[in-house]
Amino acid sequence: MNIRFTNARILTMADNEDIFEGELHVKDSKITYVGKKTENGSLNGFDRVIDCEGNVLMPGFKNAHTHSGMTAMRSYADDLPLQEWLTTKIFPMEAKMTGEDCYILSKLAVLEYLTSGITAVFDMYLAPYDIARCAIDTGMKFVQVSGINKFGPSMEELEERYLKINDGNPLSSFMLGFHAEYTCDLSLLEQIAALAHKYKAPLFAHNSETQREVKECIDRYGKTPTELMDSLGMFEYGGGGYHCVHFSDHDIEIFKEKKLHVVTNPGSNTKLASGIAPIQKFMDAGINIAIGTDGPSSNNCLDMFREMFLVTGLCKLSTGDASAADGLTVLQMATVNGAKAMGLDDADVLKEGKEADIIMIDLHQPNMQPLNNIAKNIVYSGSKTNVKMTMVHGKILYENGEFFIGDDPEELYKKANEIIKRIG
Amino acid sequence: MNIRFTNARILTMADNEDIFEGELHVKDSKITYVGKKTENGSLNGFDRVIDCEGNVLMPGFKNAHTHSGMTAMRSYADDLPLQEWLTTKIFPMEAKMTGEDCYILSKLAVLEYLTSGITAVFDMYLAPYDIARCAIDTGMKFVQVSGINKFGPSMEELEERYLKINDGNPLSSFMLGFHAEYTCDLSLLEQIAALAHKYKAPLFAHNSETQREVKECIDRYGKTPTELMDSLGMFEYGGGGYHCVHFSDHDIEIFKEKKLHVVTNPGSNTKLASGIAPIQKFMDAGINIAIGTDGPSSNNCLDMFREMFLVTGLCKLSTGDASAADGLTVLQMATVNGAKAMGLDDADVLKEGKEADIIMIDLHQPNMQPLNNIAKNIVYSGSKTNVKMTMVHGKILYENGEFFIGDDPEELYKKANEIIKRIG
Repeated sequence: MNIRFTNARILTMADNEDIFEGELHVKDSKITYVGKKTENGSLNGFDRVIDCEGNVLMPGFKNAHTHSGMTAMRSYADDLPLQEWLTTKIFPMEAKMTGEDCYILSKLAVLEYLTSGITAVFDMYLAPYDIARCAIDTGMKFVQVSGINKFGPSMEELEERYLKINDGNPLSSFMLGFHAEYTCDLSLLEQIAALAHKYKAPLFAHNSETQREVKECIDRYGKTPTELMDSLGMFEYGGGGYHCVHFSDHDIEIFKEKKLHVVTNPGSNTKLASGIAPIQKFMDAGINIAIGTDGPSSNNCLDMFREMFLVTGLCKLSTGDASAADGLTVLQMATVNGAKAMGLDDADVLKEGKEADIIMIDLHQPNMQPLNNIAKNIVYSGSKTNVKMTMVHGKILYENGEFFIGDDPEELYKKANEIIKRIG
Repeated sequence: MNIRFTNARILTMADNEDIFEGELHVKDSKITYVGKKTENGSLNGFDRVIDCEGNVLMPGFKNAHTHSGMTAMRSYADDLPLQEWLTTKIFPMEAKMTGEDCYILSKLAVLEYLTSGITAVFDMYLAPYDIARCAIDTGMKFVQVSGINKFGPSMEELEERYLKINDGNPLSSFMLGFHAEYTCDLSLLEQIAALAHKYKAPLFAHNSETQREVKECIDRYGKTPTELMDSLGMFEYGGGGYHCVHFSDHDIEIFKEKKLHVVTNPGSNTKLASGIAPIQKFMDAGINIAIGTDGPSSNNCLDMFREMFLVTGLCKLSTGDASAADGLTVLQMATVNGAKAMGLDDADVLKEGKEADIIMIDLHQPNMQPLNNIAKNIVYSGSKTNVKMTMVHGKILYENGEFFIGDDPEELYKKANEIIKRIG
């Protein structure tokens, strides 16, 4: 479908580019024009013309760490610390989940992503083939990352997933990773490192989310999780870490040297009392910082507006500096930096030739007025109510509160409630 | 207008009452029935029957500290510490604001309050007569508190405001207060204390928002702001403080003994890097804790969902205890405790005879599914998108995204932009 957006305020997120008034054209899955108003007739070659009424078009948010299928466990086991929550509540339920459950529950997550202007997710969960099916069926962009740990899958299965899911479908790809140091033994970590070497692939994992995790790793290996992974050669081809809360200066040095990505998850880190990530230090080191919601059972919502405010707010709080991590910097993290971490180099900014992963931010809402600084409004006062449209790969999946993913939302809610009744 | 809400999930917020399925009746400004489904015909004596479709009815949120008229300065002077922001940016602009500006800008704030399910605000700002007019014209409940400081108004004007605005209109009332210790001299504080004694009135002020404020007060008087106010007899008839971030154990003891209210403002405190309030200590002392957004120039949004998540999140983070300040406790703060602090004893819970300040929370949204724990869903994953209706004093002011305050929102946006152009 070819769509012409007119009368828009455009925030390309390309370097040093201010918001300007103009229009944007989409043909099939690509952006074919971004610029000033064009002169030629309104419907020439377009299936649809959308008058943006002065609203903002910008790149969709990249949710750079999540576990979509955990929607079933939202508000199921709150107010518990990470380790207890994981071992006594979550793992036993996950053992009962089927691939079809994952498919349904990931679709429920997709609905919520769309309401928050998220156009791609970096997803680590069970049943990757079913999740890939969810991506293709709904139209959402899933970059999956393997969450292998000592309970499975086998290395052979992991390699097969890596090869099969990376079949070129632009909505579905797969990166190498593992759950975390504390759920893998050394021999497994060595095998994973070898696989990353075989494919010259970047590698991602939960890293230093809690103090306990770091302490136990040091007790076991005399090294922090980052030092251990580095010593195993896991970062030869890049990659990064999720959470990265309790990082030493040496860990930061390793991330800087190896050009690794930090994915910060402040909603989850506050709710589980894990701590505040040293965002200012990461910025000072020039490390690429992306933002993720984490899963809906630890956060509990899949809302990039909440995360953006927390990134800047917690950075200001922990440094005591109200100017730290300003609005535009955080907007960069939530879009361009996320795309970079997830290998979505063609879905980062609004530019001719880039993939059409675009959202429209409604300025005709009281929380966006007056228009003193639109980018800061989005970060400091924006909310899901401002997401008027979410387009993924050229297809509008959410517009004016309606979903277009091929499922009736009420049916998905019903099925999700049935699943939790069965496995809870 | 008499309205019958059927097919609702009802969260009364009365002590120990679980959510139940039933209906609720409103006649004029009061709740006349809350309970199980009634048998009699649907339209008997009702002007309208609203099928809630299983959505939640609960008491509206009480925004217990705000400066509504500051909407003009949203995203105007961000990323600055409190004192610099206040003295170099805000005060000079406020000097140019007219009463009519305040009226318009407060109306803009009302729109946003309604989208966030806020049914009453504890407002401290310039031009109280114009703000009272805003309350009555829009239908929003404003409890104003005087923000007197050394720049004005005179004590005579303050007393006149107190008497005139407390004329019995249920939408508009006025409480005694002052801006903060650091903007008043001792003689003024003594006069304010005397006025509170004359009317046996509770007294509110910004209190210990920043470390600098506390340090300078100790330098000046050898006392913390709380100790100073207490020593001046300011708390003989109750009252409380806004922010209350840097409280000593002795300050907490005073608040406990005098049964004072803490109004916490975590959004503003994070964004201005002011600090984290000791919520757990306040809870341990049995102090009534209410929640406020603070003004839209320091937060920058008027969103109780953001505040609720921050209250629980920051409490969990600062105590290192993921079970601290759980969802239901925070929901209590945002509703019942706020009503208590604001003197709105008849607008606290859903019960026969109480004022009809009611909101409907939409559960037919992905962030509210599945329904494992509805109260926790509201606090941990709720957002403005879930506010389906906001009723204040028996009148629906917001429903399905539409406003009913007697103004065209677009006109208010336009006027707000004109004001900032003039005074900015």
